[in-house]
Amino acid sequence: MYYYNTWVVLIFVVLKAKEGYAKETPNVIVMLMDDMGWGDLGVYGEPNKETPNLDRMASEGMLFTDFYSANPLCSPSRAAMMTGRLPIRNGFYSTNAHARNAYTPQNIVGGIPDSEILLPELLKQTGYRNKIVGKWHLGQQPQYHPLKHGFDEWFGSPNCHFGPYNDIGTPNIPVYRDALMAGRYYEDFKIDHGLSNLTMLYLDEAVQFIEQQYSKKQPFYLYWAPDATHGPLYVSEKFYNTSRRGLYGDAVRELDYAVGEILKTLVKIGLDKNTFVFFTSDNGAATYAKTAGGSNGPLLCGKETTFEGGMREPAIAWWPGKISPGQISHQVGSLMDLFTTVLDLVNIKPPSDRSIDGISLKDTLFQNTEVQRPLFYYRGNTLMAVRLGHYKAHLWTWTNSLQEFNRGTDFCPGEEIKNVTTHDQVEHDPPLLFHITRDPGEKYFIKFNTEEYRRAILDIQSAVATHMKNLVPGTPQLNMCDSAVMNWAPPGCDKGGNKCYTPPVSKPYKCTWVH
Amino acid sequence: MYYYNTWVVLIFVVLKAKEGYAKETPNVIVMLMDDMGWGDLGVYGEPNKETPNLDRMASEGMLFTDFYSANPLCSPSRAAMMTGRLPIRNGFYSTNAHARNAYTPQNIVGGIPDSEILLPELLKQTGYRNKIVGKWHLGQQPQYHPLKHGFDEWFGSPNCHFGPYNDIGTPNIPVYRDALMAGRYYEDFKIDHGLSNLTMLYLDEAVQFIEQQYSKKQPFYLYWAPDATHGPLYVSEKFYNTSRRGLYGDAVRELDYAVGEILKTLVKIGLDKNTFVFFTSDNGAATYAKTAGGSNGPLLCGKETTFEGGMREPAIAWWPGKISPGQISHQVGSLMDLFTTVLDLVNIKPPSDRSIDGISLKDTLFQNTEVQRPLFYYRGNTLMAVRLGHYKAHLWTWTNSLQEFNRGTDFCPGEEIKNVTTHDQVEHDPPLLFHITRDPGEKYFIKFNTEEYRRAILDIQSAVATHMKNLVPGTPQLNMCDSAVMNWAPPGCDKGGNKCYTPPVSKPYKCTWVH
Repeated sequence: MYYYNTWVVLIFVVLKAKEGYAKETPNVIVMLMDDMGWGDLGVYGEPNKETPNLDRMASEGMLFTDFYSANPLCSPSRAAMMTGRLPIRNGFYSTNAHARNAYTPQNIVGGIPDSEILLPELLKQTGYRNKIVGKWHLGQQPQYHPLKHGFDEWFGSPNCHFGPYNDIGTPNIPVYRDALMAGRYYEDFKIDHGLSNLTMLYLDEAVQFIEQQYSKKQPFYLYWAPDATHGPLYVSEKFYNTSRRGLYGDAVRELDYAVGEILKTLVKIGLDKNTFVFFTSDNGAATYAKTAGGSNGPLLCGKETTFEGGMREPAIAWWPGKISPGQISHQVGSLMDLFTTVLDLVNIKPPSDRSIDGISLKDTLFQNTEVQRPLFYYRGNTLMAVRLGHYKAHLWTWTNSLQEFNRGTDFCPGEEIKNVTTHDQVEHDPPLLFHITRDPGEKYFIKFNTEEYRRAILDIQSAVATHMKNLVPGTPQLNMCDSAVMNWAPPGCDKGGNKCYTPPVSKPYKCTWVH
Repeated sequence: MYYYNTWVVLIFVVLKAKEGYAKETPNVIVMLMDDMGWGDLGVYGEPNKETPNLDRMASEGMLFTDFYSANPLCSPSRAAMMTGRLPIRNGFYSTNAHARNAYTPQNIVGGIPDSEILLPELLKQTGYRNKIVGKWHLGQQPQYHPLKHGFDEWFGSPNCHFGPYNDIGTPNIPVYRDALMAGRYYEDFKIDHGLSNLTMLYLDEAVQFIEQQYSKKQPFYLYWAPDATHGPLYVSEKFYNTSRRGLYGDAVRELDYAVGEILKTLVKIGLDKNTFVFFTSDNGAATYAKTAGGSNGPLLCGKETTFEGGMREPAIAWWPGKISPGQISHQVGSLMDLFTTVLDLVNIKPPSDRSIDGISLKDTLFQNTEVQRPLFYYRGNTLMAVRLGHYKAHLWTWTNSLQEFNRGTDFCPGEEIKNVTTHDQVEHDPPLLFHITRDPGEKYFIKFNTEEYRRAILDIQSAVATHMKNLVPGTPQLNMCDSAVMNWAPPGCDKGGNKCYTPPVSKPYKCTWVH
């Protein structure tokens, strides 16, 4: 009996060990660029071809031709990536006006709700250590901060690096080290006439974090979110004036360099074979910024719009030994798939109590399979367009109001397509249909009275009906603004030089979203 | 004395042998596509990435980001490539109207003048065997044929594959085997609803020629000029409906395959180390053909225009062992450089009795050097634009007339830039200036009252002055048309099935060039 029990225990131990072994714990690095466009990388056809490291990353991994952000604006896109859910579900939208893009300026009241489950929360439960480096953009009030939502470490900022402000009418944006403010942009973290060492700081943070986790044999999730390509552009001295494309190109070159250094670090310490790296961007290039913005290549318009230039993104997956080199994937992918894919890679089941919009790209990554799935292009509370297979239907078209356009804000500079790049919000019933792989520039709509139109639109309408039937919109988080919620006195502002300011009396008001 | 003489003779023999050895005789293959655009290759950012062979060719060789055709239309561009001289010098232009693109339809009277020296003529003098496969386009009258101008072999056609015709009002275009007609398009060489095996025939011709010269240790020049991407598009059954881009994409895929096969042949027989291969196109994609035309990526407009989309081309140089793999060159290059470069590679001096516009890219190819040179964008007899360094100045802008535009011919579909994509011929004095590497889409002109404008325009004006001072326009060859000169009775039409027809009485008239 005694012997028998020993055997049972032994077998149990062996099985447990094997189970532990079988459970994969690859490290995960998501590199999310800010306002970088589909056409900004050499490998995607940027005419100056100044991204040798990213181009090499693509040649060593898998390049996605049809990968999309979850929204044409940063905050909703990032919230969707973190939750695997469309902004309309997770609350990162506004109902203040029809079809409006909303985000998290520092006077926004809302942020990521506690009821949402973020990727780092799930990873943390299985023993991952999680760090965010760079821009958060899911709410600047302390309850919304990364460390309250699954991250263990943070170096970066809750908002964009707009400024400089005077700390009287508006406080400068804080930069955090974990839960506490480490200083403010323009004061402690300088951005001066396009010069700043922030990308280099973000690179150092990434490399140090990787090396630390390696030395502790600690599986990790690194969310690397630099924002040098978001206006106001900045770049380190070393890269200043080195691009053929001006300051924007300088910033891209520095980010390209940093990506190369991060990958080199993985290879050097031998973690490359156990780390899934994904490079992409939060929305299309800011075409309204003209030469201070990026390029969407041959795609129509840019950031803020639901044309391809607003939402199709550069995307590269890299995992030597697991993802074969030199692959091209035409899988229609979404930022939200990163949620589901990473969970799949580490054998965690996604939450079953809510709708998840992301799909797992595991088979795509490892076997280059392709599945058909609908892709929904939202602007605020409005479903503007749908892609299914080779076709894209516009249910609504809008660039911006004629008033905004006449003030000089042009989302489609040099581009004008009748009935498509409209300055009125136009509902299309029947929808405008494009063959998006034959016509990625959305220039030639398919005539209504054709068999091709009828067939494609039927499939799309069926996908829309299914989507709408199951849609439970979340409580909109981006409706209310209030100067009192700005970064007046962030946690830690009393440390070092006192940078705490008294907020004004709270006066909540409906935010105005013009686009 | 006797011994002394023997030594002298011996030394002489050794020196001669050494001289013979030093004289390089690399084989030369120029692959010239028809109406293929800058943005049509995966490596240049075509969103469907369907050109694995060309992308690999680029990764094994040198990719040019800033390489240009010599003209926005096929015949002048090809004549310039063959002679190293601008069409305004070699006569491939018209003075019938201002700034008109002209070419060689089958009723054109003119063709390449005997006074012009073509690359194959010079190569032939040093012992090369030369073959053209595909479209000639330098005149269809027998005196203009390739075998009268330096080529030893020909399989292909003097004109575009327009048709089918009825052989009564208009004869079908002949296909030649060397000096004699081998049949006619649509009759003997079928093109039927987009299906034709012509690209495969052209591939076979190339491979056979290469293998034959190899077996004879014969240095060769192969000019491979298929025209499947020129309307009416055609493709072999094997490639039909295989592209995500429709028939145009099918044609590109087949050409990509054929390029791969030609390179494979070189490698297989070991000629790759002694063959300079250059892939490019004759002008920008035919944007007026909509989805039946190619892509110019982010570049403005297309074929027929002097915007970047009309003249910037895909260009790849390949020569394993001589050109290092994976290089990017920003050298501003021109089709005309192929003349000068090939002469340099084989140690032949270019003619000294005339102006040559091409420069040698030998150092660029072997050492990736870059030299500044002006690039002149002509439309017929008019200098429309000039590029120098990072800047491009438009002296004239024109797309096409409002009348043509209203008839549905649009060279810039979906694109509209005020004062740039004009429907009037507009002379700009001072010129419109663009920073073409920062702004490859020619969207944001540089303000006149800036230091940047003044500096750049001064350099450009000086380059224009030098160019104009030395310019001796050739006799225009493309002014006169005549139905009598069409392909009624080509040499060899009496062989096999009689395909000779009686030409109408000669009635020369001024050709009408609308664009």
